[in-house]
Amino acid sequence: MRVDQRAPSELRPLKLEIGSNIYAEGSALISCGDTKVYCTASVEERVPAFLKGTGSGWVTAEYDMLPRATQTRNQRERQRNGISGRTQEIQRLIGRSLRAVCNLEALGERSIYLDCDVLQADGGTRTAAITASWVALICALNGLVRERRLRQLPILSQAAAVSVGLVNNQVLLDLCYVEDSSAQVDMNVVMNSHAELIEVQGCGERSTFSRQQMNAMIDLAEKGLGELFVLQREALASHSIYLPKQITHE
Amino acid sequence: MRVDQRAPSELRPLKLEIGSNIYAEGSALISCGDTKVYCTASVEERVPAFLKGTGSGWVTAEYDMLPRATQTRNQRERQRNGISGRTQEIQRLIGRSLRAVCNLEALGERSIYLDCDVLQADGGTRTAAITASWVALICALNGLVRERRLRQLPILSQAAAVSVGLVNNQVLLDLCYVEDSSAQVDMNVVMNSHAELIEVQGCGERSTFSRQQMNAMIDLAEKGLGELFVLQREALASHSIYLPKQITHE
Amino acid sequence: MRVDQRAPSELRPLKLEIGSNIYAEGSALISCGDTKVYCTASVEERVPAFLKGTGSGWVTAEYDMLPRATQTRNQRERQRNGISGRTQEIQRLIGRSLRAVCNLEALGERSIYLDCDVLQADGGTRTAAITASWVALICALNGLVRERRLRQLPILSQAAAVSVGLVNNQVLLDLCYVEDSSAQVDMNVVMNSHAELIEVQGCGERSTFSRQQMNAMIDLAEKGLGELFVLQREALASHSIYLPKQITHE
Amino acid sequence: MRVDQRAPSELRPLKLEIGSNIYAEGSALISCGDTKVYCTASVEERVPAFLKGTGSGWVTAEYDMLPRATQTRNQRERQRNGISGRTQEIQRLIGRSLRAVCNLEALGERSIYLDCDVLQADGGTRTAAITASWVALICALNGLVRERRLRQLPILSQAAAVSVGLVNNQVLLDLCYVEDSSAQVDMNVVMNSHAELIEVQGCGERSTFSRQQMNAMIDLAEKGLGELFVLQREALASHSIYLPKQITHE
Amino acid sequence: MRVDQRAPSELRPLKLEIGSNIYAEGSALISCGDTKVYCTASVEERVPAFLKGTGSGWVTAEYDMLPRATQTRNQRERQRNGISGRTQEIQRLIGRSLRAVCNLEALGERSIYLDCDVLQADGGTRTAAITASWVALICALNGLVRERRLRQLPILSQAAAVSVGLVNNQVLLDLCYVEDSSAQVDMNVVMNSHAELIEVQGCGERSTFSRQQMNAMIDLAEKGLGELFVLQREALASHSIYLPKQITHE
Amino acid sequence: MRVDQRAPSELRPLKLEIGSNIYAEGSALISCGDTKVYCTASVEERVPAFLKGTGSGWVTAEYDMLPRATQTRNQRERQRNGISGRTQEIQRLIGRSLRAVCNLEALGERSIYLDCDVLQADGGTRTAAITASWVALICALNGLVRERRLRQLPILSQAAAVSVGLVNNQVLLDLCYVEDSSAQVDMNVVMNSHAELIEVQGCGERSTFSRQQMNAMIDLAEKGLGELFVLQREALASHSIYLPKQITHE
Repeated sequence: MRVDQRAPSELRPLKLEIGSNIYAEGSALISCGDTKVYCTASVEERVPAFLKGTGSGWVTAEYDMLPRATQTRNQRERQRNGISGRTQEIQRLIGRSLRAVCNLEALGERSIYLDCDVLQADGGTRTAAITASWVALICALNGLVRERRLRQLPILSQAAAVSVGLVNNQVLLDLCYVEDSSAQVDMNVVMNSHAELIEVQGCGERSTFSRQQMNAMIDLAEKGLGELFVLQREALASHSIYLPKQITHE
Repeated sequence: MRVDQRAPSELRPLKLEIGSNIYAEGSALISCGDTKVYCTASVEERVPAFLKGTGSGWVTAEYDMLPRATQTRNQRERQRNGISGRTQEIQRLIGRSLRAVCNLEALGERSIYLDCDVLQADGGTRTAAITASWVALICALNGLVRERRLRQLPILSQAAAVSVGLVNNQVLLDLCYVEDSSAQVDMNVVMNSHAELIEVQGCGERSTFSRQQMNAMIDLAEKGLGELFVLQREALASHSIYLPKQITHE
Repeated sequence: MRVDQRAPSELRPLKLEIGSNIYAEGSALISCGDTKVYCTASVEERVPAFLKGTGSGWVTAEYDMLPRATQTRNQRERQRNGISGRTQEIQRLIGRSLRAVCNLEALGERSIYLDCDVLQADGGTRTAAITASWVALICALNGLVRERRLRQLPILSQAAAVSVGLVNNQVLLDLCYVEDSSAQVDMNVVMNSHAELIEVQGCGERSTFSRQQMNAMIDLAEKGLGELFVLQREALASHSIYLPKQITHE
Repeated sequence: MRVDQRAPSELRPLKLEIGSNIYAEGSALISCGDTKVYCTASVEERVPAFLKGTGSGWVTAEYDMLPRATQTRNQRERQRNGISGRTQEIQRLIGRSLRAVCNLEALGERSIYLDCDVLQADGGTRTAAITASWVALICALNGLVRERRLRQLPILSQAAAVSVGLVNNQVLLDLCYVEDSSAQVDMNVVMNSHAELIEVQGCGERSTFSRQQMNAMIDLAEKGLGELFVLQREALASHSIYLPKQITHE
Repeated sequence: MRVDQRAPSELRPLKLEIGSNIYAEGSALISCGDTKVYCTASVEERVPAFLKGTGSGWVTAEYDMLPRATQTRNQRERQRNGISGRTQEIQRLIGRSLRAVCNLEALGERSIYLDCDVLQADGGTRTAAITASWVALICALNGLVRERRLRQLPILSQAAAVSVGLVNNQVLLDLCYVEDSSAQVDMNVVMNSHAELIEVQGCGERSTFSRQQMNAMIDLAEKGLGELFVLQREALASHSIYLPKQITHE
Repeated sequence: MRVDQRAPSELRPLKLEIGSNIYAEGSALISCGDTKVYCTASVEERVPAFLKGTGSGWVTAEYDMLPRATQTRNQRERQRNGISGRTQEIQRLIGRSLRAVCNLEALGERSIYLDCDVLQADGGTRTAAITASWVALICALNGLVRERRLRQLPILSQAAAVSVGLVNNQVLLDLCYVEDSSAQVDMNVVMNSHAELIEVQGCGERSTFSRQQMNAMIDLAEKGLGELFVLQREALASHSIYLPKQITHE
């Protein structure tokens, strides 16, 4: 039995609220159990130097935690000299994951910034950030279509992420903080709605893992991601945003 | 007529939600119109070096804005070299204002950190932060009393803040961003519930102001602060926190 | 009786020396008792990015203290990560105060940097810096007029500043360090020579203050500022710089 | 045919030189084709704060590139504000990989720092760094055993790493820079000599990948890692360091 | 003929004012022509970590320039990321030069900080800083003797510095800025009053120099230093500080 | 007898390997006893802002040490706030020394970066870096001549450097670390192959030195530099780079 009474293959209670910020071109607030991430998507009509003149756009992400997102208070990163390795790893992962389902040429020479700020952190903040960022991105792109700045959504598929892990030799889906901190193996899986992998990061600092265990973890992740893709579509539909089948692959 | 149809002496619609964060010892989310500030109070059982061994405690604040709190996206302060002057001014003001109503000796050698993170900024974020921080502080201190780590609340009175200003030669209460950015004079007034001033900062970069205008602005601020003190008490009462009369001065 | 035998409404002995630096376009060294601030005004023929093409100029200030300006040695700010909050607050105040009496359109697209370096600090360094900076600014602008780069001084009035405070429940003018560090309330008042307020910052961290006490403090500041305006005019006259009546308002 | 005429499942020419630095407790210089990484292992008789008093030791890594390790010169990281995300990701990966095969309790309260400095970078620097760091670590630990500061090597198995990828829809082993920069999918696999996974990082920014492709890539990595484990043992043997069977698992 | 009409072997007009700062344990303001450096000596009863428990003291220096010390305004170093190479070179030179004439064991476990802030820079600021710092150091040490915290001055000899150079193939003493910026060779010579060298830094970026030219430059420096030693003694004598013959070597 | 059995006027065993890096336009790895410095020369077709449009080129250097270049591990400079004074002094010295023998006008508007990374440090790293950098510079310039981007080498003479010092009152050539750390006087001498001085830095922190001792030290340096000039020519000749007599002055 898990610490919060869930079955091994059960996601935590989920909520995905669109429009949590009135200024951003797109926004979504996700809750996965006690984990809460506030995501905004901002459109800027310019690209980084390396893309100028290429006709291609850019999608990038920033990640941060409020000082009291955790059980004990953390210092703000602005007080350190530079951004921590953990933060950089996470925001690079979010950016890569979204770019993998985005047609950057079709986006044109503009940038979308995804800002993911963790209000409460009970494990799985990076995967929650990816799942919610994809929704905020769609809202922002949908606005560009509505304003006729784009002809159609420059999007190839849905993208979502979930954590899986090996805890007490048992494969578990969607680890909360207590499970995560005692996991032998911790794996984050990012997939698209066409059942293809975007990124897999499995790490066994406390223990190593066999090929079989790895496959069992990815199987379980795939199951959870199916539920997350439905959640994303429902949240968008409740705001009257309906996606074509070639994106959702329903 | 004001941009949002308010009377000159009218506050914006207010909401003060207690317990917005499950980990912090105290927390409050304030909305003043479209301005939203998320405040947490964290208790730590140690004090800064200059207070060690004095028996006295400390109350301090940090302030930050999410990148998309505003109409256009701002860079995070962690990307700059050091914290901006505006941020430092604001967080020093919040800290001083709360210490002014706190009995630091009675608090004992512990620190309370108030973290004020602006989710949306439509003017008046620093005054909203003070008003909400005081509530988060009471929640945290009340917890210490409940856990018998303190005998009673080490608090002298309520503290709240509001902005006033001179816009088109008219004295206005609780400026929204559009008013603030065209104001001739901008004044922030922090008072306690005993009708005494804690801090006054009036600034006429775009114009100077007479003693009479100054007095009219403070009169109006005093009127608005009366309403804010009621709001604070109601929010606490809805969480069954009732304050003695020597604090509320009702 | 005050610590240095002054009457409550008495300024410390004042000295304002023009031309303390041979390279700067304007310079002034002010002594207020043991407080000494070295101010230079530098003219640069360019403006910050946000003013380019607007036809408007800019006046800004930087403030710093030498390590041994105080009883015990302080670390230089270059050794910290970023400029301290106190320094930023002060230099922003000096800049705003001077811009409030300057016609930036008439100045044209050029910038004046006021550098205020404290050689000795016995309280009131920020107000001394404002009073002396205004003089250095006039010297620099007068040079531009003399060289026919400006038709007339782009100045609306004199600007000066002084501190007042509540010490042992008594209202005092021009606090020295010992008084300042035991003051219940500390207030800095910036006015122009037309008896209008430019900025008021009153702060009661150690105690709160009533509306009456606030008015008594501003009355006393107004009295001291009258003497400072005379001092500024005398210092300029001794260098054969005479200001028109619409500026001095004599 | 690959750019350097290799078969898809062929490693580049390898060289592993022990003792490249005379001061370090352990050192190894690895060449994989034109990639060259200089690794040192330094023993320090203290641990980070979070381990003090636990009896447990620590193994950690730092990674850097000389400015001219690449085709065009790069700026040194000391000139930036903080360490880049890429560098942090890599050095965290190296540290985790080595700790996964190390018995930190048996190491006792001391730290081993692995410094991996890239002299030439032709792809696969992070995996080369892991493979060589493990050898430098063994040299340093062997010295502690020889000096009787440790009873036996606190090591569970060998650890090595290799890159695999999908280039033009073909699965390739040990990508050089030209291949890496045009790869659809890029995967780094860290394993121990018992055929278990330590870390898998697969990333398809340019394309997604199927479960089948993932398995084919890991199969190929496993083949290459077998050769690297032999290389590590031979390099150590040439310095008369022989490992027990429970570590090498031959 | 030199730009300011001096003979090749003539120093600029000199002034050395003791007691320019009322808080510092020692202070001196030096003018060499238009170069002005403000020096303070601060005594602190602790030493850097590497000297704790050794019984030995420490003498160190910091150097900075006010933004308008020069013809055009410079940015303050606190706005950069770290201290400039030039500043560090200079302050390390000042520290070494003073330590060379100081008996650090006799000083005991305390530190003297020399702060050298350049008010005006017309060439030769580092040498002027050394000459004046030595005087400020003596004042501070003399105070320790007077207060019986030291038995006698822990000083071996006087120390002073001067620049020499090769300009248009002519050897010149005490270069002003115009001469310095067109010099073929620039040399700073630090000596003690016993005619021994403490430090020589000769640099021929614009031209190389022969052994003969080097000797001619040092001869000229020695001549100028003799005058500076007299100036130091006179300044101290005017404050009733008289040095024993073994120090002055008169 | 010296610690490593050398005669007072004997250099340590030397090795100068050209082409140690395959990407750089020029490279050289120097060993002087146990001191090893890895130098690369990188050509960039742009100059710093202050040279744009002047037709003149630029030669500059950066210096760093790997963490384990020394007996005990040092922290990387990227972890500090800014580059250390020692590093800056050294890299400025290397740059000045090479520019002194380079015709920057003939080089044209391009920059050469010399990167000097110390692999092992047993004293004399800065002088070894100068000697090897000159060789790497020649390789890079020779490439430009071969590619007809330059008509001839824009070089006036050879440049090399060596340390000398006073240890136990004896004048020694090419100090190793143990000698250097107990030296009374430490002097670095940079000369060209025409027997002229480029830079002399003599420093007597632990003791002062007479004119005679200074001359004896420079005599000894001159002797050692003669041998280094031969070594440079031999290393280049072994790569079929032969220099005209007006450069080598043989």
